[in-house]
Amino acid sequence: MLYLVRMDVSVPSHLPAAEVEAAKATEKTRSQELQRDGRWVHLWRVVGRYSNYSVFDVDSNDELHEILQALPLYPFMKIEVTPLAQHPSALDSTT
Amino acid sequence: MLYLVRMDVSVPSHLPAAEVEAAKATEKTRSQELQRDGRWVHLWRVVGRYSNYSVFDVDSNDELHEILQALPLYPFMKIEVTPLAQHPSALDSTT
Amino acid sequence: MLYLVRMDVSVPSHLPAAEVEAAKATEKTRSQELQRDGRWVHLWRVVGRYSNYSVFDVDSNDELHEILQALPLYPFMKIEVTPLAQHPSALDSTT
Amino acid sequence: MLYLVRMDVSVPSHLPAAEVEAAKATEKTRSQELQRDGRWVHLWRVVGRYSNYSVFDVDSNDELHEILQALPLYPFMKIEVTPLAQHPSALDSTT
Amino acid sequence: MLYLVRMDVSVPSHLPAAEVEAAKATEKTRSQELQRDGRWVHLWRVVGRYSNYSVFDVDSNDELHEILQALPLYPFMKIEVTPLAQHPSALDSTT
Amino acid sequence: MLYLVRMDVSVPSHLPAAEVEAAKATEKTRSQELQRDGRWVHLWRVVGRYSNYSVFDVDSNDELHEILQALPLYPFMKIEVTPLAQHPSALDSTT
Amino acid sequence: MLYLVRMDVSVPSHLPAAEVEAAKATEKTRSQELQRDGRWVHLWRVVGRYSNYSVFDVDSNDELHEILQALPLYPFMKIEVTPLAQHPSALDSTT
Amino acid sequence: MLYLVRMDVSVPSHLPAAEVEAAKATEKTRSQELQRDGRWVHLWRVVGRYSNYSVFDVDSNDELHEILQALPLYPFMKIEVTPLAQHPSALDSTT
Amino acid sequence: MLYLVRMDVSVPSHLPAAEVEAAKATEKTRSQELQRDGRWVHLWRVVGRYSNYSVFDVDSNDELHEILQALPLYPFMKIEVTPLAQHPSALDSTT
Amino acid sequence: MLYLVRMDVSVPSHLPAAEVEAAKATEKTRSQELQRDGRWVHLWRVVGRYSNYSVFDVDSNDELHEILQALPLYPFMKIEVTPLAQHPSALDSTT
Repeated sequence: MLYLVRMDVSVPSHLPAAEVEAAKATEKTRSQELQRDGRWVHLWRVVGRYSNYSVFDVDSNDELHEILQALPLYPFMKIEVTPLAQHPSALDSTT
Repeated sequence: MLYLVRMDVSVPSHLPAAEVEAAKATEKTRSQELQRDGRWVHLWRVVGRYSNYSVFDVDSNDELHEILQALPLYPFMKIEVTPLAQHPSALDSTT
Repeated sequence: MLYLVRMDVSVPSHLPAAEVEAAKATEKTRSQELQRDGRWVHLWRVVGRYSNYSVFDVDSNDELHEILQALPLYPFMKIEVTPLAQHPSALDSTT
Repeated sequence: MLYLVRMDVSVPSHLPAAEVEAAKATEKTRSQELQRDGRWVHLWRVVGRYSNYSVFDVDSNDELHEILQALPLYPFMKIEVTPLAQHPSALDSTT
Repeated sequence: MLYLVRMDVSVPSHLPAAEVEAAKATEKTRSQELQRDGRWVHLWRVVGRYSNYSVFDVDSNDELHEILQALPLYPFMKIEVTPLAQHPSALDSTT
Repeated sequence: MLYLVRMDVSVPSHLPAAEVEAAKATEKTRSQELQRDGRWVHLWRVVGRYSNYSVFDVDSNDELHEILQALPLYPFMKIEVTPLAQHPSALDSTT
Repeated sequence: MLYLVRMDVSVPSHLPAAEVEAAKATEKTRSQELQRDGRWVHLWRVVGRYSNYSVFDVDSNDELHEILQALPLYPFMKIEVTPLAQHPSALDSTT
Repeated sequence: MLYLVRMDVSVPSHLPAAEVEAAKATEKTRSQELQRDGRWVHLWRVVGRYSNYSVFDVDSNDELHEILQALPLYPFMKIEVTPLAQHPSALDSTT
Repeated sequence: MLYLVRMDVSVPSHLPAAEVEAAKATEKTRSQELQRDGRWVHLWRVVGRYSNYSVFDVDSNDELHEILQALPLYPFMKIEVTPLAQHPSALDSTT
Repeated sequence: MLYLVRMDVSVPSHLPAAEVEAAKATEKTRSQELQRDGRWVHLWRVVGRYSNYSVFDVDSNDELHEILQALPLYPFMKIEVTPLAQHPSALDSTT
């Protein structure tokens, strides 16, 4: 089941740089684990923004929320979730 | 080069039904041609809306505009285009 | 799996009254079937509006879209869908 | 009498963690008391957000405001209240 | 129990003038009945708009919705409802 | 001459509590003076918000601005002013 | 007492041209009467729009509403009214 | 050549009061110089806001920007500029 | 003096096709005259929209308004005008 | 391939002035390098704002994102990117 997710990151400028870098590194590791296990299907940068559009393939709303709220940068992100359905003109809706 | 495109369709209610159905059928055919030739990479329905989120892979802004404005439902669509770039955490950004 | 759905109805004033009344009657019948089979869990009127907030309990994004787009008033509704997850403080999240 | 309430929580990042945790624990206790006495009828997490949609069943606008402003996280929440009425197609509007 | 209600009227220009005038006359009569029985407490014109701000004093959300949806101009109005509570600094909150 | 005024209060969290409490107490005293002399005609709490809707009866735009900017919480309020006129269907527009 | 007023004109395209021209001519005449008697103090075109910003000098909210709603193009205008007060740095606030 | 300019002032609460007062005093002096030399034609307070609407009469976009960015409170203002043109119904568009 | 202008075109669907095509042809001719005489400096299509971003180089706000309102498609366009000034980092601001 | 880019700069007031000035100087140098090599085609100041509208001519979305995110003021800018295409009425779309 697919969801389009937009994440806009805004890290407060008073956070220590080392703490921010550590969070970003962990975020990258966690993101790649989720890409490898097939749940974070697409990950694109929005040109000109510290933002991404992503597509997730999970079994439920609850699973998606658990993934998102466990991301290291979650406290600094504004997230918008759009549930997707199969389009009648799509040749292949599995991804 | 990838673009996220959202299309919201709103057909005026006074159009003849046959004309609308013909446009939709042609739209589907054209959409599937573009999916087959690799330029309309993803096509998803937004749940609860006569809308889609799509990803296009084209060589230029001009090519994207030519594709979009040639769609049969183009006169009845509001379209938003977001240019996408490779994300540094993405394992594979080719699609 | 729960979704909060808001529907705002706006019937064009030039439609024949009989056609509108027929659509509303069918809508009511269909809504009550879905309430009885447990998929349309809640249905509330927004005070002062021809709108409702509803909660659906379905197995997938696709199932929700199929239900919504088959409603007789679907062509005249603007629909917003918010996916819901279990809240950690909720005593009972089944409804 | 039912109200749909959306709460978006935003705790300032400079607050001491212990103070925040204490407020959240008290908030959970208070929320569950109100769920048990039948006034906080539903409590759902919005996927991807530190937000909830809730339904309250109270006797008056004043009673709802007293409940909301006494919540421990109230100073950190943006709250939107939508009064609900019985829907003519609803089989059971009591919850 | 008090509610602030804003009504913005927009009558489609193709309606017959006689029909519109009849609806307005009935609206005025009904409005004054509700003012006399104490439920439509205040009625003010917004300067420069075909709009009003009103205060209603009713026993429930349902009663307010029944009053509003029975107004002759209801099909042509966009209505926003804000529930009001007693203010701790108000000398007299009864009106 | 009547004005509808909405005030949304947002006190910065770093202000000393004693200073905030003093400002609120003075605000209450000043508000009640203005209610007694007939210029602050109505004062209602918006349910779920640190906000009020008020109606002022003053002789001029200048008088209203002088009253508002002299309120102790003025630096922490976002204020929206809507000029009101007599409604042709109102039985009594004096308040 | 001064008010800044913005008027955005939008004449439905199905109105007979002669009727529209007549309304515009009457509007111009009425506007110039009000400029001569000192109540319509300023009248400026917004570049690129069928809109104006105007300043009115009238004795009350009611007088302003009466003037505006009597304009021939009033049914086709969206009007926003901002009450103005004397600025402490202004050398001359009379106009 | 006329421009309508709206300035919304928002001074950060952590600035030293003396610094803020000095900036306001210089702002007033500069504003009155510009009023005297005929470039800052009108200056009005928005009721209930730390905002003004102003009209400037300058020779070019560049001249307007130089004036605005040199104001002492410029770093704390959000400014919106609307170019104005002569209105065909205006008796006198020179101010 | 430069202005950024965005034009969004929306032709009502009930207009006769021949009339629309004639207006478009005249619009193109007029646009190219203005490009040749140096006043319509840039003209770009917004990808996916019946819209353009343009840059005009004219002597005054009045001249810009006269050009825009004389365009054949003006009655069907929503136009936003942003005055531009020389940027201190620009190597060449003449176009 | 052209893009219209709007950048709104907002530097937090608590940053050391020397650090800000250094970033601005480096930004200017970098901007002029990009102007000289033909990728930053236009750079205009928005009147009354610490903002610019720019046009970039680059080979891909990725190249544009790399340029933007490497700007010294990037962490303090909100950036909006609009892809541009050749307009059928443009005499010369190369710049």
